[in-house]
Amino acid sequence: MPMLAIAGDSATGKTTLSHGLAKALGPEKITWMCTDDYHKYDRQERKDLPFTPLHPDCNYLEIMEQHLQLLTLGQPILKPIYNHDTGTLDRPVLVHPAQYVIVDGLFPLWSKLSRACFDVTVFLDPPEHIRRQWKVYRDVTKRGYTEEQVLRDLDKREPESEAYIRPQRKHADIVIRFAPVEGAADSKALSATILLRPTIPHPDLSDVLSNDSKGALHMKLIRDDDGKPVDAIHVHGHANREASREVEEAIWSKLGIDAPVPDCLGEIEGGKRSEPLAIAQLILLYHLLLVS
Amino acid sequence: MPMLAIAGDSATGKTTLSHGLAKALGPEKITWMCTDDYHKYDRQERKDLPFTPLHPDCNYLEIMEQHLQLLTLGQPILKPIYNHDTGTLDRPVLVHPAQYVIVDGLFPLWSKLSRACFDVTVFLDPPEHIRRQWKVYRDVTKRGYTEEQVLRDLDKREPESEAYIRPQRKHADIVIRFAPVEGAADSKALSATILLRPTIPHPDLSDVLSNDSKGALHMKLIRDDDGKPVDAIHVHGHANREASREVEEAIWSKLGIDAPVPDCLGEIEGGKRSEPLAIAQLILLYHLLLVS
Repeated sequence: MPMLAIAGDSATGKTTLSHGLAKALGPEKITWMCTDDYHKYDRQERKDLPFTPLHPDCNYLEIMEQHLQLLTLGQPILKPIYNHDTGTLDRPVLVHPAQYVIVDGLFPLWSKLSRACFDVTVFLDPPEHIRRQWKVYRDVTKRGYTEEQVLRDLDKREPESEAYIRPQRKHADIVIRFAPVEGAADSKALSATILLRPTIPHPDLSDVLSNDSKGALHMKLIRDDDGKPVDAIHVHGHANREASREVEEAIWSKLGIDAPVPDCLGEIEGGKRSEPLAIAQLILLYHLLLVS
Repeated sequence: MPMLAIAGDSATGKTTLSHGLAKALGPEKITWMCTDDYHKYDRQERKDLPFTPLHPDCNYLEIMEQHLQLLTLGQPILKPIYNHDTGTLDRPVLVHPAQYVIVDGLFPLWSKLSRACFDVTVFLDPPEHIRRQWKVYRDVTKRGYTEEQVLRDLDKREPESEAYIRPQRKHADIVIRFAPVEGAADSKALSATILLRPTIPHPDLSDVLSNDSKGALHMKLIRDDDGKPVDAIHVHGHANREASREVEEAIWSKLGIDAPVPDCLGEIEGGKRSEPLAIAQLILLYHLLLVS
């Protein structure tokens, strides 16, 4: 039963990434849970607390670890529920691990114990100014906050984000950075840089991805921020479907599955499609299917 | 960390029995939980269900077993909450196992797995007509039901009580039957028959309890309902404190504790005292202190 962690700060695109994977694998085969459910306090109580949900003390992380371990053992859990609509902690629900388990949230890579539960770990790492735009957009349109509230909240969270969330980046097998195309007026066409760390065996893409940085898709051996070597796949925001499709087919063919590449990959809001997202999802799909 | 199970149907005196033990051991040293918290449905939802809370399908028994196992391993649990006042399922709470764990409820002796978690197991077994009186009294005065509702509910529960609750009796190390003094007009002075099964080593009381059934306290070797041999301690409802005290001192002295017998044992509602209850509690206290 492969387990995938998708860690990242609030509004980094965890749900969008997970959603396509769940659709491709079949929702009935997926247990998809969010570590936000392990919040200790409801929205009302948090108003009087000196920390935000990004602080470990604001979460039952010990129980999160325990539940992750139980899931890896194939055991059910009675999972707490944090209701994002109402900001309340509701009655827990029974969760049986399905064929695949996807865990996203702020803290899945928090501890050695939690990380040990996963077969593949991802950290989402968009530039902060993009993440702020995304968070304002989401929290205003979907969670009933005002823009001013969201911006104030972002500032309040920043020290804890730096202290507790961003350090998880170094523990991920794969780091995905969606970012606007440099110099482009249309900031909606995002590029992606996908760092593949040599901590797990990634698909060999040397036959389809060149080292030529002028191509819409290319792969380079680079040094990460910390100086460590890593393969960096770059997918340009304006990469066309044909170029993307060739890479997708190459990854997919390595799995030896007698079916076409799932066409639900790359779906974003409003029925649009993102080739960088599709490639990122396909690499994760590769890992999930290979482990299983 | 000794774990004690007190199983029994609704309104059999589980809370009264546990309360004195918790007081004697020190509430801060006790984790006291009730398996009713593992109800799957709230009171409103249960109205449309074909079974009562006494049915296994109405409870997360698999999770109850898991949590009991975690507690035996010294691990914390995020325990669900069934709120008896409101009939709702509330947010779960973090429970760390303390020095002693007391688990009461309808189902602690349900499965081999759950029973294996306990050092001492008790089943409360009052005569049905007494239990019905107790349940009517409690549910009307404390849980906001009418007498008619409680009686209807008791009838509805009877088949499930027979099928799922009473069979747990055979798995208990100790069976306690509080019952009115036969032929007495004052039904409030309850006698107790305490069956000590040879499944765990009980205190040897042959030096203080005679086989003379005319005494207010006596012990006999009898056959249980199923024909199996068992020691039966009988404490008469009118046993006086001196007679009871002698037996209590004898049990207590076997523990070698340099302190008097806790005087909070035997407390019942309204500041009254029951010698049969005190003896029953002291035997349980003996087991808890001996294991620890």
